[in-house]
Amino acid sequence: MSRLETVTEIAVRYAETDRMGVVHHSVYPVYFEVGRTDFFEQHLVHYDRMEQAGLMAPVIELQLQVEGAATYGDVLRLRTFPLWLKGVRLAMGYELHPRGSDVVLATGSTTHALLGPDRRPVHPRRFAELYGKLKEVFGE
Amino acid sequence: MSRLETVTEIAVRYAETDRMGVVHHSVYPVYFEVGRTDFFEQHLVHYDRMEQAGLMAPVIELQLQVEGAATYGDVLRLRTFPLWLKGVRLAMGYELHPRGSDVVLATGSTTHALLGPDRRPVHPRRFAELYGKLKEVFGE
Amino acid sequence: MSRLETVTEIAVRYAETDRMGVVHHSVYPVYFEVGRTDFFEQHLVHYDRMEQAGLMAPVIELQLQVEGAATYGDVLRLRTFPLWLKGVRLAMGYELHPRGSDVVLATGSTTHALLGPDRRPVHPRRFAELYGKLKEVFGE
Amino acid sequence: MSRLETVTEIAVRYAETDRMGVVHHSVYPVYFEVGRTDFFEQHLVHYDRMEQAGLMAPVIELQLQVEGAATYGDVLRLRTFPLWLKGVRLAMGYELHPRGSDVVLATGSTTHALLGPDRRPVHPRRFAELYGKLKEVFGE
Repeated sequence: MSRLETVTEIAVRYAETDRMGVVHHSVYPVYFEVGRTDFFEQHLVHYDRMEQAGLMAPVIELQLQVEGAATYGDVLRLRTFPLWLKGVRLAMGYELHPRGSDVVLATGSTTHALLGPDRRPVHPRRFAELYGKLKEVFGE
Repeated sequence: MSRLETVTEIAVRYAETDRMGVVHHSVYPVYFEVGRTDFFEQHLVHYDRMEQAGLMAPVIELQLQVEGAATYGDVLRLRTFPLWLKGVRLAMGYELHPRGSDVVLATGSTTHALLGPDRRPVHPRRFAELYGKLKEVFGE
Repeated sequence: MSRLETVTEIAVRYAETDRMGVVHHSVYPVYFEVGRTDFFEQHLVHYDRMEQAGLMAPVIELQLQVEGAATYGDVLRLRTFPLWLKGVRLAMGYELHPRGSDVVLATGSTTHALLGPDRRPVHPRRFAELYGKLKEVFGE
Repeated sequence: MSRLETVTEIAVRYAETDRMGVVHHSVYPVYFEVGRTDFFEQHLVHYDRMEQAGLMAPVIELQLQVEGAATYGDVLRLRTFPLWLKGVRLAMGYELHPRGSDVVLATGSTTHALLGPDRRPVHPRRFAELYGKLKEVFGE
């Protein structure tokens, strides 16, 4: 079974490197967010519109493994895929490679709380159309 | 006449360096913001409370001259001072040095629009207490 | 006469917004760098290879005018163009628009020092092939 | 037994907030790095000098739990403490609170590879003085 995922190309920015000569580890969560934006737009709804509709999904947990190094001049390929949806939380997974290579630069996951405009947990079933897509995407 | 100013010490963060080994130029505007926060807190009002009171001062113009280099391990001394206040705009100036040295690492200025909650220009005289301080600080 | 320029599309990242709801002004210099990378790659040489060949072009001056606001969900169109080349310095210009609009969000310029591996000024004529292209691009 | 730790005060910068109004999660790894810098300086050696002596400790794993929210105007108190040292790797732990409160805003850990100038794993016993301190700090 082919896993549902998006693939995002990201060109490393000079500002993202540090004096070790490579992408600073705090940039990977930003790359993951870029991939998540693509995944939501393609398979659910653009996160911007989701937020405007009153549903936010802030990161409450982040795991990151850095297994290689990237630098300015590199173009990366980020795979973003759904992990799970449980009640008022969901999790996404990430794998980062150099473009045109299977080498793994980094892997990670993010867990998100689903919150309403009052910043309190809200069950996605309140957003019927989105909820249908969420169940499909997360295979519930 | 001694110019009104604040002096802020800033320890360079590793994440702020780039692969040239020095602080990336896009970090200087963030340093300036740190100095501006100190200046507003000491001589006007904490910018956080100003914003909560309905007055925002976003940057609409930035000038930066980089004359030296700083890196991780350095502690910097940022001087922040008022330049001018005219109607619905004000400008601040900055000088960045290594701690304990007169060498100039960077200088700059920022111009700010004064905006209300509706993001439209608002004259600071609407904020009587702050306006009194502004006139003192900017020497009007 | 049509001006030599590159056009770069940039999707605003969530992490680039601030609590005013818009792109923080310190992000514009990073966007300019992205545009500069495209310009150098298309009309001169990829800046990564230029650096590896021993020629660096750090920013020594930055001017930025913010005239509008961008936020997450927006795709921007950055125009990057050469301003001048004089001895061991060059300058580039920038104009940022929303995609599909002539509204100006920001304009700016950066001045760069040309430095060798020893971080001292070096005249680009030492890099014959690049120098030929530089003269063409900057219209000398 | 009182655990060895450093406490670092960090004032949230405006640029670190996002349009949700709070510190963006990608900033927490940068805060952890600030705390780590303090811990190394107080109990081991300044990381800058360690790097200059030929020993680097890049992050190869990061875990972050966000349990609260911080915003501009807040001053945070970051506790940084050693977790373990095993061969060519070590791990550090973090707890972030508002100043003057026991509320937990975020917790996390980072795992670091010890690398030589050739970017290959190097055992810290090669750095006799530092190794003595490392064993004390990590309780080996």
